[in-house]
Amino acid sequence: MKITRPTFVVNKDKCLQNISKIYNKTQAHQLLLRPHFKTHQSLEVGKWFQKIGIERIAVSSVEMAVFFAQNGWKNITIAFPFNILEINVVNSMNSEINLNLLVDSIETANFLKQNLTKQVGIFIEIDLFYGRSGILPTEIKQITEIADVISNCQNADFKGFLIHAGNTYSAETKTQVLEIHSTNLQYIKVLKNQFKPKYPNIIISYGDTPTASLADDFQEIDELRPGNFVYYDLMQLKIGSCERSEIACALFAPVVGVKQSKSEIVLHSGAVHLSKDYVVSKDGTKIFGEIYFAENDYKTIDYSSKAIIYSLSQEHALAKCEPEFLKKVKIGDLLAILPIHSCLTANLMKSNQVIS
Amino acid sequence: MKITRPTFVVNKDKCLQNISKIYNKTQAHQLLLRPHFKTHQSLEVGKWFQKIGIERIAVSSVEMAVFFAQNGWKNITIAFPFNILEINVVNSMNSEINLNLLVDSIETANFLKQNLTKQVGIFIEIDLFYGRSGILPTEIKQITEIADVISNCQNADFKGFLIHAGNTYSAETKTQVLEIHSTNLQYIKVLKNQFKPKYPNIIISYGDTPTASLADDFQEIDELRPGNFVYYDLMQLKIGSCERSEIACALFAPVVGVKQSKSEIVLHSGAVHLSKDYVVSKDGTKIFGEIYFAENDYKTIDYSSKAIIYSLSQEHALAKCEPEFLKKVKIGDLLAILPIHSCLTANLMKSNQVIS
Repeated sequence: MKITRPTFVVNKDKCLQNISKIYNKTQAHQLLLRPHFKTHQSLEVGKWFQKIGIERIAVSSVEMAVFFAQNGWKNITIAFPFNILEINVVNSMNSEINLNLLVDSIETANFLKQNLTKQVGIFIEIDLFYGRSGILPTEIKQITEIADVISNCQNADFKGFLIHAGNTYSAETKTQVLEIHSTNLQYIKVLKNQFKPKYPNIIISYGDTPTASLADDFQEIDELRPGNFVYYDLMQLKIGSCERSEIACALFAPVVGVKQSKSEIVLHSGAVHLSKDYVVSKDGTKIFGEIYFAENDYKTIDYSSKAIIYSLSQEHALAKCEPEFLKKVKIGDLLAILPIHSCLTANLMKSNQVIS
Repeated sequence: MKITRPTFVVNKDKCLQNISKIYNKTQAHQLLLRPHFKTHQSLEVGKWFQKIGIERIAVSSVEMAVFFAQNGWKNITIAFPFNILEINVVNSMNSEINLNLLVDSIETANFLKQNLTKQVGIFIEIDLFYGRSGILPTEIKQITEIADVISNCQNADFKGFLIHAGNTYSAETKTQVLEIHSTNLQYIKVLKNQFKPKYPNIIISYGDTPTASLADDFQEIDELRPGNFVYYDLMQLKIGSCERSEIACALFAPVVGVKQSKSEIVLHSGAVHLSKDYVVSKDGTKIFGEIYFAENDYKTIDYSSKAIIYSLSQEHALAKCEPEFLKKVKIGDLLAILPIHSCLTANLMKSNQVIS
């Protein structure tokens, strides 16, 4: 294999280690693991999960559910508020597919009650003060109404509550992640206790990579739904979810310019490859990726010196080099870029080059 | 046509108007027009240019050049510093294709001299103090050396200087764009006068949508190479390159949640659809898109009230609604989102739904 243009490379050994780490944790805590496949969207990576016995997956759109259902996956949660315009797609899915939908409004619950012809499971999305989608755990009246509608829906089973602990993504230390998690566990306990008497089979599905990576106390949580951990990235490194060496993917990209006097390089690796996501460094500058030399057929990354991408346009990356890095780098080098947000980079690149 | 999930819709009539406006300007000023196809990457949109007689195009990667070459385009400039790792792809391109490459270093120029087997044109990229790729117009020695190498290369014609006037993208008024352009014209005149005696056939290829849209004085420029103008977007609106009604594309996306108490809506339209590009509003908040109602089979956009996307994750958009907008909006509405950066949105969405 010789790479000549921007290529998304996945290190299979590192992925398998990341998968094992989280899988072993869920086993030890008797949790279900339902990995979120929006991160990789890859049938090949999916097979690595299948091999260790994973049958349940989460996806983030009806389209992605159809894709994985057509490729042999039979237990799929669409972890995104259901889009009522896609009811026909859901109703026409194979009856063999165990599909779970998400609702966070009485309107969508009523719509499903009236229009579902396929048997599905339904979760109510709870927002633990992240402020995106979902109902606050304090809005008991609204949750009760929706649960009533679902449980009276002929073609639906009320499955429980689904939570995305999005607040952990703004944490900057393991301690902060665990503090957020600890607060969340308290809300979850109250919520489950309130609804368990009437709905004894409900579960709590909980998803985010920082908590799955760092927590060791899950209490009333029944299912973990992380996605990013299979690859990790610089955002997770900043939070503390992983070590740099656990980042299992890189965009390999060619150097097209070296500006010695400015300690800068130009690469073919723009927003159409990496995405425009960034982290902010301690001095307030935006970082769009870290660049390293790699060897051994793209398998080994040399973390000893780096360049930092500080500007990204559609196809260009501009990076500042450390002195040792600048001494070595030349036009035509193919370098490994650790992405800020591997989900978005994987989505842009569409295909993987797997190495092992 | 009924749209049910995030879909990139292109209004053909508006595109044709945008194309005509720039085409007529280039005709009036006796300029060559070489539209940049990285914006749309679409064969169908390409045909609209073909119909008015456009045969020359610009692209931003070797891959994109191959794609358009395989689909009948025969005069292509790869307006990105040449990646020497892709020499074999270039050498194996059909001899019918008039291909122009870009260099901004003596290393790449020497590499091409030694390795080119296909006949190509070569431009030297000049950086008019934007700071991305290219050589500063003041680095005469370096430019002279590269021009010498190219003109002594058996398989290359030295075509002239190619400039991306990227500084205009940070302008916020027409006046600022014209000031930047006026300074650029002075550098161009000096540069052309210096090299024209030795290389009488060289041309100046100049590209950016703000200048193409707003300027009426091109002096020594021979070729315009704008791309974004075919669609325009909110970034161009902010600069002043277009009117809102000239924006010729929209991401249509379903409303999946309405939070009346917060005047907010949630849509299925995330970073995987729109890209994470944003503009900063006067009060310092990030804006990821403007949302409007549309009618008449997606053809007519109602600009009378709007919602503003202030947060974007992989699949979710969160938007603040104006009061009139909030009164009307409901779950299941399919709304038109004007993108911040249409090039990145088009790249993510891959396919267009064309309406006319």
